[in-house]
Amino acid sequence: MEKKLTKRSEDYSKWYNELVVMADLAENSAVRGCMVIKPYGYAIWEKMQSELDRMFKATGHQNAYFPLFVPKSLFEAEEKNAEGFAKECAVVTHYRLKADPENSSKLIVDPEAKLEEELVVRPTSEAIIWKTYKNWIQSYRDLPILINQWANVVRWEMRTRLFLRTAEFLWQEGHTAHATKEEALKETKLINELYVDFAENFMAMPVVQGLKSESERFAGAEQTYCIEALMQDGKALQAGTSHFLGQNFSKAFDVKFTTQSGGLEHVWASSWGVSSRLMGALIMTHSDDQGLILPPNLAPIQVVIVPIYKGVEQLETISKVVNKIKKELTSHGISFKYDDRDNLKPGYKFNEYELKGVPIRIAIGPRDLENNVLELARRDTLEKTIVPIKDINKYIKSTLEEIQKNLFDKAYKFREEHITEVDTFDKFKSVLSVKGGFVSAHWDGTIETEQAIKKQTKATIRCIPFSDKHREGNCVYSGKPSSQRVLFAKAY
Amino acid sequence: MEKKLTKRSEDYSKWYNELVVMADLAENSAVRGCMVIKPYGYAIWEKMQSELDRMFKATGHQNAYFPLFVPKSLFEAEEKNAEGFAKECAVVTHYRLKADPENSSKLIVDPEAKLEEELVVRPTSEAIIWKTYKNWIQSYRDLPILINQWANVVRWEMRTRLFLRTAEFLWQEGHTAHATKEEALKETKLINELYVDFAENFMAMPVVQGLKSESERFAGAEQTYCIEALMQDGKALQAGTSHFLGQNFSKAFDVKFTTQSGGLEHVWASSWGVSSRLMGALIMTHSDDQGLILPPNLAPIQVVIVPIYKGVEQLETISKVVNKIKKELTSHGISFKYDDRDNLKPGYKFNEYELKGVPIRIAIGPRDLENNVLELARRDTLEKTIVPIKDINKYIKSTLEEIQKNLFDKAYKFREEHITEVDTFDKFKSVLSVKGGFVSAHWDGTIETEQAIKKQTKATIRCIPFSDKHREGNCVYSGKPSSQRVLFAKAY
Repeated sequence: MEKKLTKRSEDYSKWYNELVVMADLAENSAVRGCMVIKPYGYAIWEKMQSELDRMFKATGHQNAYFPLFVPKSLFEAEEKNAEGFAKECAVVTHYRLKADPENSSKLIVDPEAKLEEELVVRPTSEAIIWKTYKNWIQSYRDLPILINQWANVVRWEMRTRLFLRTAEFLWQEGHTAHATKEEALKETKLINELYVDFAENFMAMPVVQGLKSESERFAGAEQTYCIEALMQDGKALQAGTSHFLGQNFSKAFDVKFTTQSGGLEHVWASSWGVSSRLMGALIMTHSDDQGLILPPNLAPIQVVIVPIYKGVEQLETISKVVNKIKKELTSHGISFKYDDRDNLKPGYKFNEYELKGVPIRIAIGPRDLENNVLELARRDTLEKTIVPIKDINKYIKSTLEEIQKNLFDKAYKFREEHITEVDTFDKFKSVLSVKGGFVSAHWDGTIETEQAIKKQTKATIRCIPFSDKHREGNCVYSGKPSSQRVLFAKAY
Repeated sequence: MEKKLTKRSEDYSKWYNELVVMADLAENSAVRGCMVIKPYGYAIWEKMQSELDRMFKATGHQNAYFPLFVPKSLFEAEEKNAEGFAKECAVVTHYRLKADPENSSKLIVDPEAKLEEELVVRPTSEAIIWKTYKNWIQSYRDLPILINQWANVVRWEMRTRLFLRTAEFLWQEGHTAHATKEEALKETKLINELYVDFAENFMAMPVVQGLKSESERFAGAEQTYCIEALMQDGKALQAGTSHFLGQNFSKAFDVKFTTQSGGLEHVWASSWGVSSRLMGALIMTHSDDQGLILPPNLAPIQVVIVPIYKGVEQLETISKVVNKIKKELTSHGISFKYDDRDNLKPGYKFNEYELKGVPIRIAIGPRDLENNVLELARRDTLEKTIVPIKDINKYIKSTLEEIQKNLFDKAYKFREEHITEVDTFDKFKSVLSVKGGFVSAHWDGTIETEQAIKKQTKATIRCIPFSDKHREGNCVYSGKPSSQRVLFAKAY
C-alpha cells in the first residue's frame, strides 16, 4: 500500500504485474516460473472452481483423480501429443536423495536410486487417463465416460508471468469417452457453450466462440473449440478450449468397445480445460488505475463496511447498526466484511478495498446514523450514493446486479469496438499496431499464410468464429479465394 | 459384481483390497505406487474435503497454493525434516525430452536440459512455505498467519496399498505462524480437537487423542499431536496429526518479526494435515462382508430407490410416486438416487448398493403402492422395515441419524474392548498376537525400550493419550519406573 500502482495507460504490463502483487493475489516463488497463489487470489479461484464444478456436475460429469506422473512410454504413445509437450516437460529421474559425502549438511541425488523408466510430471493427462480407460471400457454399456479432474499441471515455459503463463498451474481437465463421433462432437460443443456461460455470466467477460486453425490446435486433437477474450490492451487471451480428439487416443492406447450390434470399434474422445490463467483474464478485463475490479458473482467479499468514528463509544454505536445489516445481508447469501480494525485510518482502508476490487464499499459515521443513512461507493464506477439504512438490503442486491451487468456491457462495448474488418495487408498491419484488438480478415486457409502473417506481425489466428456467416472474399495476405473471415490478434 | 468379495474374517487384507476395487473407489495405475481415485471414491473424498474446509474456515483459516516443487537447497535447510524425507523423494532433474536419435518415435531425456538445481516434488511443504513466509512477516502485525493448502504430495514409499500408503496422495496441510509459543501450541491443540470432531462426527470413527513419542514425531517437529483410530483387524491407524514446530523452521529460514515492544524474535509455527488415507480408515472402520458401509454424513448417495416392476406402465406409476418423494427429500438436503435402469434386475442393484455402502435402500413395487407403503433397508444392520409412504421423509431423516450414531457406537464399543491394560511383557506379546488392538502399558520413556519392543513385536507407541491420568508403575519391558501408560499397537 506504500507504493502507488503504475497507471494502466502508462505501462500495461507493469500495471498488471504490480496489481497482481499489490492486490495480494499472487507472487513469484523461490521456484523458477512457479507462483504462490495468496489467500485473496485463491479465494477468487475457489469461487471460479465452485461455479464451474456446479456446471460440470449439472451436465452429468463426475470428478476423479489420476496420477501426477506419466511414465515416458505412455507419454510418447500418442505421437502428436507427445511432440507438442516434450519440449517443456519436468522429468523425474530419481526417487531418493542422500547425504553429500563431502558435506553432510547437504543432500545430493542418490545415483543408485535412478528410476528404470523416467516419469513426466503431467503437462496434461490424456495419456495416463486413456491408459486407464482401456481397462474401464469393454462394451457400449460402459459409455459414455464423463470425467473431470481438478489438478496441477507443469509445463516448463521459458518466459513466465503470474497467472498468465507459469511453469506449474492449476486447472480442470475433462476427459470423455463416447461410442460415436457425433456424441463426442456434441460433448465438445456442450463444454464450449458451458465455458461461454461461465466467462460471460460469472467473469463478466465477453468471448468470441469458434474453432482454432490447425496450427493453433491442441496437440493430438482433430478440432479445437475455443473461447477468446480481449484484454484492455488489445491483446487476445485464449480463455477455454474443448478438443474433439477423434479416435487418436483410443487408437494410441488400443481402447475398443463392442457395439450394440456386436461389432468392435475404437472409442471417440473429447478433452477440455480452463486454468488459473483465467485469473489473469479476469484482472485484465476489468481493472483500472485504482486496482482490481471484481464482478460481484466472483468476489470473495461483495460488500465491505468501514466505520468512521472517534473513540470506542462511537464505534460501538456503529457496530450495533452494522451487525443488523450484516445479519440480513448474510441471510441473503451476500458475502460481507466489517473492517473495524482500529489501527488503520478509513482512507487507508478505502484504498485497500479499491485495490482489492471489492464491488461495494459502505462508509458509516455518527452523522450518517443520525440521518439514518449510509454512504455506498461502487467500485466499478467509483460513484457514491447516500442510501437510507432501511433500504440497504434491497439497494445492495440491485447494485450488485447492476455492477455485474455494467462490467459485462463495458467489456462488450470495448470488444465490439476492437473487432476491425480489414481487406488489405497494409490495413491489417496498421490496425494491429495502432488500434490493436481483433482483426477480422479473409484467410486462404493455409498454414503457410498463417505463418507468414505471424512472422511479419506477431498476430496469430485466434479463432474462426461461429458467429460470422460465410462470406466470399480474398485472403488479406495471399489474395487467394477465401470463404470466411477469421480473427487475428496478438495474444497472451 | 461378477466376483464375490472375500470374507473379512477369512483374509482382512485381501477383503480390503478387493472391496476398494469392487466398490469402485480406487485402483492401481500404470505408475508404480500411484492410484487412480475413481468417481465414487472421489465423491466421498469431496464430502470429506468440504466438511474439513468448512471447519478450517470457521476457525479463521484461509486457503492458498504453494509450488509443487522444492529446490534442493531449500529442502535441506531444516535438517531433521530433510533427513526424514530425503529417502523417499521424487526428484526432477531435467526439463525437456527430445526425440531418440536411434528411434524417432521414442523420446529420451534431453541431456542438455539438465536443471542447475534439482527440484524435489513436495513430500510436505514446510520448506517452500517458510521460504515464502520470510517475505510476508516483518512485524507482529503480520501475525498470525493461518493458511491451509489442499494439494497432492509425493513420498516414494516402497510398499504401497490403495489409500493407505501410496506414492502420490491427496491431502490438506495447514501451516501457521505465530508471535508466541503459547499461541502456536494453542493452534496445534485446536486442530487436534477439530480432527477429533471430524473423525467422530462425520466419519463415525472413534479416536484416541494424544501425543506421539519422540521417535514417531514428524521430522522437524517439537511435539506431534495425533488422533489414532483402531481398525477392525486390531491394527491402529494414524488418522490426523498436528505438529508444534517450535522455531525450527523460522530459524532454518531466518524468519523474524519485530515484537510490540520493539524486539526481534523468531516466529513460532505449527503444521497439520490429514490425507486421502482417511478413505482407508473409513472403509476399515465400518465395512463388512457385503462391502462398504458409509456413515450418512459422508455418503455421496444417502438414499437409493430401486423400483420393482414389470412393464412400462408399472414403472411409470412407481416413478410418479418416487418423483414426489425425491422432491421432498432433496428439499431437505438428502442426497438421493433413483435407479430406474431397465437392463438390470433389482437383485443386482441391491447387491451393487450394498457393495457401495449406500446407507438406506428403498424398494418399491406395485403391491407396496396399493398399500401405500415402501420397504426400507438399512445398510448398517441389513434390517428391513415397511414404512407408510406418508411418513417416509421423517422416517428417512431419523434413520440416517440412527445409522450415523449406530456406526459410531459400534466402532466405539469395538475400540473400547480392544484397549487392554497389561503389566508384563509376556502378556503384552500374547495380547498383541491373539487379541490385537491397543495395548496399554507402562513405558520407561526411552527410545531404546521403544525400539526393542518394536523389534520383538512390530508394535509401536501409537499415542501417549491425554485421557489417561498419570499413574505410577513400572515399564512393561525394562521394569524401570514410569508415570503413565501409553498405547502400543501394530499399525497401518
